[in-house]
Amino acid sequence: MPEIRVETASAQYSVRLGSGLLGSLPKLLQELPARPSRVFVVTSPEIERLWGEAVLQPLRDADFAVQTVHIPAGEQHKRLSTLERLCEELAAAGADRDTLLIALGGGVIGDITGFLAAIYMRGIRFVQVPTTLLAQVDSSVGGKTGVNLAVGKNLVGSFHQPIAVVADLDTLQTLPRRELRAGLQESVKSAIIRDPALFEFMEQNTETILAADPAALERVVESSIRVKAAVVAEDEYEGGLRMILNFGHTVGHAIEAATEYKHLLHGEAIGWGMLAAIHLGCARGVLPQSDADRMRALVRRIADMPPFTATADRLVALTGSDKKKRSGALSFILPVAIGEVEIVRDVTPTELTAAVEAMLAEVHASQPASLQEPAHAS
Amino acid sequence: MPEIRVETASAQYSVRLGSGLLGSLPKLLQELPARPSRVFVVTSPEIERLWGEAVLQPLRDADFAVQTVHIPAGEQHKRLSTLERLCEELAAAGADRDTLLIALGGGVIGDITGFLAAIYMRGIRFVQVPTTLLAQVDSSVGGKTGVNLAVGKNLVGSFHQPIAVVADLDTLQTLPRRELRAGLQESVKSAIIRDPALFEFMEQNTETILAADPAALERVVESSIRVKAAVVAEDEYEGGLRMILNFGHTVGHAIEAATEYKHLLHGEAIGWGMLAAIHLGCARGVLPQSDADRMRALVRRIADMPPFTATADRLVALTGSDKKKRSGALSFILPVAIGEVEIVRDVTPTELTAAVEAMLAEVHASQPASLQEPAHAS
Repeated sequence: MPEIRVETASAQYSVRLGSGLLGSLPKLLQELPARPSRVFVVTSPEIERLWGEAVLQPLRDADFAVQTVHIPAGEQHKRLSTLERLCEELAAAGADRDTLLIALGGGVIGDITGFLAAIYMRGIRFVQVPTTLLAQVDSSVGGKTGVNLAVGKNLVGSFHQPIAVVADLDTLQTLPRRELRAGLQESVKSAIIRDPALFEFMEQNTETILAADPAALERVVESSIRVKAAVVAEDEYEGGLRMILNFGHTVGHAIEAATEYKHLLHGEAIGWGMLAAIHLGCARGVLPQSDADRMRALVRRIADMPPFTATADRLVALTGSDKKKRSGALSFILPVAIGEVEIVRDVTPTELTAAVEAMLAEVHASQPASLQEPAHAS
Repeated sequence: MPEIRVETASAQYSVRLGSGLLGSLPKLLQELPARPSRVFVVTSPEIERLWGEAVLQPLRDADFAVQTVHIPAGEQHKRLSTLERLCEELAAAGADRDTLLIALGGGVIGDITGFLAAIYMRGIRFVQVPTTLLAQVDSSVGGKTGVNLAVGKNLVGSFHQPIAVVADLDTLQTLPRRELRAGLQESVKSAIIRDPALFEFMEQNTETILAADPAALERVVESSIRVKAAVVAEDEYEGGLRMILNFGHTVGHAIEAATEYKHLLHGEAIGWGMLAAIHLGCARGVLPQSDADRMRALVRRIADMPPFTATADRLVALTGSDKKKRSGALSFILPVAIGEVEIVRDVTPTELTAAVEAMLAEVHASQPASLQEPAHAS
């Protein structure tokens, strides 16, 4: 079972990755220096139906005082009002500073639960148990937590590291295929920014990965987590290097905002965003055409990204309001080779517009998605 | 002008203390490694009327983009819903990661603004400009921020250190006398837990201090802040030593809850709470009677604490739900000498009930407060 260490200035913890890991939670909690007084599993009703008992029963058997707290599925519940209700529920149930939370679910559940743990009594411990590919390869590791405002996503939050991440690959087998594919774009991102070997593996084993083959998925998830862990270890609070994890996200977030978060899954928007960034790298002449072609091909094969409607001007305007803007200068993550990106702050609106237009030409050329599943994330 | 350094694991900053300091904010901000993109002064309409221009005009003169954001006065607004509104206001006004907040006001303003700075875009910089004695000697220093839940006070929050504290003693001259006296109980607390010289100064100069003599107040405020800074430097996250700052607060918080936060100012409730703790120290035989007598006399002279109605059983029950409870054992701060306290975890309900009853006997023996000002805090 791979175990990946995350060592940041504020915390050190392990990401455990493998099959049948949900039952290992009691042992993990028993080995803590201070035994949790109570355990709350924060999850959605849908995830609880699939994986609730596999988490709860072993904890009960090990004599932990454990109960479930629900967050309804859907990004619209990722708000401070949900957080207030959860805080009141914890307090009413007697949660104290030695209480531990378990985030069981996808990225939304993990982000909310992490923020809840960050602010309840000014900080309690929590464990991430990600059940989606997106959460396993990206959001569960690194301590970014938060909720949305009416005016934008993830504008409120904390850096609060979990005490452990338990990524059970079995949970990926119940994931809708469209969600799996969208999540894999974050692994493509990890490969492009820092792991040429992962890139080659994904190129050479695309069909096996898309078929959710356990061994292939384990290889992809492990490498993606290692990239994330290494970056976060060097720059926990996104003062510099950590920005490279936003490769594809500047334009990706703009696409999500322009389509009101309804039409595309996060990973699909990031896929389009990476294509825009690749165009920009080519236009600047810093990214060799052969690398760009391979990147573009992998992004297109990994997920069948639905087309969408938006003008280049609108998307560029939306990147200007992106929260990664620092004092007026937009930070942009530019690919320069497979496994290497640069942080630049001199991208002009004209340059960005040209890259977005090139990306939009690909959008218009693509056929409507054959998949009819609705866009949603747990 | 006294300048007190606060050096914690997460931050280092100065507390500047003196007269006419509000005009020094532009210089402070100009000397920061990164100039703030925008400055928001978070305050109440009442405080803005008194001190708003003294803060705003010099900042405008120094070409800072500065604007005011309001929090209505009163503890009832110290909630997550207020925080959400403030976040939306900041976002709508274009606040980014390089924005700086200035908390101009008392403890409620400081706690909310600090928490706002902690979570807006996962953390931005803020300066504490406390305008009440309570905020100057206690809440503005040390990085505890937060809001209340329906079920209890300060149950949600963050540790987030300000980048500076500017305590202008001039602002104390407009403070209602009752608020000044109540706030001084936190200085009595500082003296009892760690500063015998401050205790003697307060004993010998009580009338001068209560008359708000600037030199006497400066002496008291400076020493109180030094106690707080030293304790916080050793234990930023209240893992141990920092608990001594809760001397008088276990029973004090119970009194506030029992009287629904309406009848007593915080410092007044803490005054009564200290008397209960002093009784407990005597009953255990760990606190010499002569020290206890001097402590009791100073607490009684500093503030004319209003009597209140509550049973010992009710108060003891309310301490049991106190958030400082760790895994079932109540941590209690026991005075053992002037300038020295101990953290104990073996206080029995019987023992605590006896101490609370002795305190209640003093409450019943005291006359109704002569002061008719309503209990409120800015």
